Amino acid sequence: MTTYSELPKKELLDLKAALDKEYAEHKAKGLSLNMARGKPAAAQLDLSMPMLDLVNAESACVSENGTDLRNYGILDGIPECKRLMASMLDDDPENVIVFGNSSLTIMYDSIMRFMVFGTQGYTPWSKLDTVKFLCPVPGYDRHFAITERFGIEMVNVPLLEDGPDMDVVEELVKDAAVKGIWCVPKYANPSGITYSDEVVRRLASMECAAEDFKIMWDNAYCVHHLNADTAEQDQLLDIGKACVEAGNPNRYYKFASTSKVTFPGAGVAAMAASPANIDEVRSHITIQMIGHDKLNQLRHALFLRDGEGIAEHMQKHAALIAPKFELVVKMLEEGLGDTGCASWTNPRGGYFISFDGLEGTAKRIVGLAKEAGVTMTGAGATYPYKRDPKDSNIRIAPTLPPLAELEQAMEVFICCVKLASVEKLLEV
Amino acid sequence: MTTYSELPKKELLDLKAALDKEYAEHKAKGLSLNMARGKPAAAQLDLSMPMLDLVNAESACVSENGTDLRNYGILDGIPECKRLMASMLDDDPENVIVFGNSSLTIMYDSIMRFMVFGTQGYTPWSKLDTVKFLCPVPGYDRHFAITERFGIEMVNVPLLEDGPDMDVVEELVKDAAVKGIWCVPKYANPSGITYSDEVVRRLASMECAAEDFKIMWDNAYCVHHLNADTAEQDQLLDIGKACVEAGNPNRYYKFASTSKVTFPGAGVAAMAASPANIDEVRSHITIQMIGHDKLNQLRHALFLRDGEGIAEHMQKHAALIAPKFELVVKMLEEGLGDTGCASWTNPRGGYFISFDGLEGTAKRIVGLAKEAGVTMTGAGATYPYKRDPKDSNIRIAPTLPPLAELEQAMEVFICCVKLASVEKLLEV
Repeated sequence: MTTYSELPKKELLDLKAALDKEYAEHKAKGLSLNMARGKPAAAQLDLSMPMLDLVNAESACVSENGTDLRNYGILDGIPECKRLMASMLDDDPENVIVFGNSSLTIMYDSIMRFMVFGTQGYTPWSKLDTVKFLCPVPGYDRHFAITERFGIEMVNVPLLEDGPDMDVVEELVKDAAVKGIWCVPKYANPSGITYSDEVVRRLASMECAAEDFKIMWDNAYCVHHLNADTAEQDQLLDIGKACVEAGNPNRYYKFASTSKVTFPGAGVAAMAASPANIDEVRSHITIQMIGHDKLNQLRHALFLRDGEGIAEHMQKHAALIAPKFELVVKMLEEGLGDTGCASWTNPRGGYFISFDGLEGTAKRIVGLAKEAGVTMTGAGATYPYKRDPKDSNIRIAPTLPPLAELEQAMEVFICCVKLASVEKLLEV
Repeated sequence: MTTYSELPKKELLDLKAALDKEYAEHKAKGLSLNMARGKPAAAQLDLSMPMLDLVNAESACVSENGTDLRNYGILDGIPECKRLMASMLDDDPENVIVFGNSSLTIMYDSIMRFMVFGTQGYTPWSKLDTVKFLCPVPGYDRHFAITERFGIEMVNVPLLEDGPDMDVVEELVKDAAVKGIWCVPKYANPSGITYSDEVVRRLASMECAAEDFKIMWDNAYCVHHLNADTAEQDQLLDIGKACVEAGNPNRYYKFASTSKVTFPGAGVAAMAASPANIDEVRSHITIQMIGHDKLNQLRHALFLRDGEGIAEHMQKHAALIAPKFELVVKMLEEGLGDTGCASWTNPRGGYFISFDGLEGTAKRIVGLAKEAGVTMTGAGATYPYKRDPKDSNIRIAPTLPPLAELEQAMEVFICCVKLASVEKLLEV
């Protein structure tokens, strides 16, 4: 088949008429399907139900260090859960603080502290005229929402196959107003790519004009492989070791959570950083709280045990969601492979497939899908200020709907992509 | 018996010799006892163990509104838990946001938002030259630590039998730099007093130069009566209604938690405020997180049910801790009643007994006790900047030690009070 852009106008018009008809048929079904949110499906949540029995009315509720976990105390996490989260964060337990159920909150509070108090003796960012943050795009909307809320100016950086475009990054960090970068370094949201060792080393070692430059290393999908075969799993270099080796030990903040391991509504989140940074964070949170939910930390430590326990558990997730990713990629390939109107990623882990349509079609595609009862992530959501300069990127989240619904939703989506593409080509 | 201050020097010296001997005997026992922290005893925590079975591997984990509580979603609390916390906060569920396990964190974050973002369109406090907060004393050290950390200047206000000295407060709030007041309005920490209706109404209606003046209403002990008989329980006027009636609906922020109802390490905390303030808080926390632990909210809603359920449960706590309060008060009365060297409160609820020694003896008493193996709350802790201008106040926390240990600890404490008092009188 010829790609759409090579079709003569007459054939485009015929195609449009056929697509209009198909679209109307989809609409007539009165669907209500959702591919918007990176939410686990109920079957995935069922995998962790046994955890709820591990701390019960008969439990001792005592930590291995003797603390009664029902009572006050332990600011930075119970030892067994610090060890567990250290395995996710690829760090030593003593460099880990375990928080509540949201890594997003840890990141928000970290940015807040940089703004209000500064870090390691440097000027609080709120006292500076301009503060900028680098945002590899497409990226995670909720990162961008945090920096936007604190009045930090966001600068787009292209995300390539192996991480942010480091030539661009190294140029931008010569500006002392550039104070940090958001990273989802493994199975990135939404593109699914993993940073190469070289990119990690360049991030760790690059010359930053701002001495308090921060790498916000949101390793949200660190254990979220889609393949059980380790040869088919991405490997990520540890940013911590890379920063230490480069002589910039205080540059990185690592984040992770069990939100997509156990329960998004009742997981545990944690950070790891240099001893100096961990001490600093501890000195702040000791004013903010007395200690997070230690019984939930115990539940997680008992259920997941260690890195191996996590890996076993994540294979069960993979068994449930890999078929959904395969279905989406197969349908995209079959439906759009020959049209020349779209490209997409085929990730080996994470929660998303990143889709790119023709320039200027993303909003229209999402709008058409919505009208036909299929909710997608809003076009532009993957860019700072919700502004996708090319209006081409759409984030596909395949995990939540059952396979049959996903298939229906993808049929609608593909029809919408074709229709919006033809409309766009007819404009010219 | 004659009060110590009336004793001739000779008799004081004899007394000191006897007390030195008694103190040495206490010291020789090698005790290790703790009356420092307002922590529930293990037997109190046992009361809530059945709660841990209410959400188990067989549970549906679905809210009454149909939400799967294991997954993402619900920013401001599940409906059944909002209703529960509304009963503690004496407010409507729609004015309530349920958070994680710490009301301290809600307060810290509230102050942070006033500083960074301002409230209801008023200038962020961080942009003002001076911000002051009123601190009724003696008060709660962790409140003072929050305002101190954010660089807010703290102004002491005497706490009387019926609440803060309102003549002083009404004078101070004529200063536009005075932006708020910390209040533990019921069974106050540490004095145990409850604000009178008149004080509540005066706080709600007073003319504040700062239009964004905030009453931080930490109702930590709202349901923590020591008596089952309601006639023997303190009643507190609702600050919310009082503020609305006075035409200052946005002046109050109410806080409460189940930390001393179920588990300090795994409870739920909540705030209530005007619809405009709740909307504002919601608009901030939607950037900071996706939702708090909803399974723990469900546990609490199922276990405590409603206001009546809470009251029944709190009677079980009272049965365990009222004898401890009675013992402390009885021993103080018998040991120090005639000395004229001390006064103390006899609260009808809460977690503390507030003790006042002779001026200039509190640090010495706490130091002596420590040396004899009895840890008290640090002298000065109940004052901003840890500075008790009279060095006389000590907070006694009787709940944690078993009765027998409490008796031992109080014997030591009383000996230390006598000894420090005699030393002080001999100085003159």
